[in-house]
Amino acid sequence: MKTKLKVVKIGGAIIDDDHKLNDFLSQFSKLDGLKILIHGGGRIATQINGKLGVKTELNEGRRITTDESIDTVTMVYAGLINKKIVAKLQSKSCNGFGLSGADGNCITAKKRPVDPIDFGWVGDVESVNADLVQLLLKNNLIPVFSAICHDGNGQLLNTNADTISAEIAICMNQIYDVELMYCFEKNGVLSDVWDDNSVIKSINESTYLNLKNEGVIKDGMLPKIDNSFYALSKKVSKVTIGGVNVFDGDKDYTTLTI
Amino acid sequence: MKTKLKVVKIGGAIIDDDHKLNDFLSQFSKLDGLKILIHGGGRIATQINGKLGVKTELNEGRRITTDESIDTVTMVYAGLINKKIVAKLQSKSCNGFGLSGADGNCITAKKRPVDPIDFGWVGDVESVNADLVQLLLKNNLIPVFSAICHDGNGQLLNTNADTISAEIAICMNQIYDVELMYCFEKNGVLSDVWDDNSVIKSINESTYLNLKNEGVIKDGMLPKIDNSFYALSKKVSKVTIGGVNVFDGDKDYTTLTI
Repeated sequence: MKTKLKVVKIGGAIIDDDHKLNDFLSQFSKLDGLKILIHGGGRIATQINGKLGVKTELNEGRRITTDESIDTVTMVYAGLINKKIVAKLQSKSCNGFGLSGADGNCITAKKRPVDPIDFGWVGDVESVNADLVQLLLKNNLIPVFSAICHDGNGQLLNTNADTISAEIAICMNQIYDVELMYCFEKNGVLSDVWDDNSVIKSINESTYLNLKNEGVIKDGMLPKIDNSFYALSKKVSKVTIGGVNVFDGDKDYTTLTI
Repeated sequence: MKTKLKVVKIGGAIIDDDHKLNDFLSQFSKLDGLKILIHGGGRIATQINGKLGVKTELNEGRRITTDESIDTVTMVYAGLINKKIVAKLQSKSCNGFGLSGADGNCITAKKRPVDPIDFGWVGDVESVNADLVQLLLKNNLIPVFSAICHDGNGQLLNTNADTISAEIAICMNQIYDVELMYCFEKNGVLSDVWDDNSVIKSINESTYLNLKNEGVIKDGMLPKIDNSFYALSKKVSKVTIGGVNVFDGDKDYTTLTI
């Protein structure tokens, strides 16, 4: 039987809130067994871009990562946020170890094709270096990933943190029995976005279709759920979407099933 | 006999110059044997602080690291510069692996006492995790350190890159036969600061004293040489100060001896 591994992603809104981040990291630190953390970006990069005078450029309404903004996200995600999280984990006796995809050639990505939309320095994951991640885990190090990857030719690429999490979960599932957990500012997928207690406890592909058609699930939740089903389709054993307290057995969260 | 390990530090002025940095990294990539890279900061943090409106605060004429500026140096050193260097090394088939002191509790530091001068979030190195560095080296990973450390209580600390390099060299010298190399924008310690060919090929503690008294060696070169002698006093086998092309056998550089 394979050893269990939890791949946990925290979203930007948790990172933006010192109190919530601290709560989350305290719980993550206490989590038994092997674990990996992946973090999103939050609003800090946008704020810093604003202060630096880096304009948000859009193409057909979608944000693109320019030469200037890849520098900002590298600074903020792989530097400020990643190291703050690692230092906080270390203070909680959790041996965090920060990584970008470039470090040890851990995650390579390919610049997204410019057609139909040129997103700039945005990458899609090509490969995850499972041997390196396993080496860290075997040595009691807790990998903490920012979503900055590289293309192998010296270019850093901004990558979606939900997608990276799914790709890491899928790749590590060759070696471990992986559970993928998306943690964000809500308690799970909600049937009423204004009611934090309206967590839908289980969603499968057929109920997802209905909930999408009814407009109950929309916007930013769609790619998260699509990534969840993608991970399940690649044999990741369990995928959940929950809140900061998702590790507390008494709390509700959403389990995805196929 | 212990295995040889080169601990190489590059200074900020090399980092600020894309062409020089690329030259240096190409040569570093080709260097045989075990190696570690430590990088300084350069002017980028100062420029970004300026754009972000973070004021340079001084205490008795010396720069202090405020709450805002520790965020900037963390972003710039541990994020932007570190990941750019690692991505460039990867493109040159050199398996760079970026680290701050917080990662895997690699380097702990203690906030410098506020008396006589409060430098803010500046740290002095307490310990280097030699086992972790050895683990990386044994697995063909090339550690690339920024000079950001942590205090173990969740606080990141700005640390002098020359000093960290000496401390890493001293600590790793328990396991390896270490050579410490300081690479900067000049070709070595110069007898005439305006003449790049006036490299002093060898300096010992007694000639250093004379050169200092004569005013030939001054300013920023003093702590670099003090760190060099400190490393030699702790049995690091060789310490050199040279330029970007220091790995090229035909070039002059300065060797420190005690």
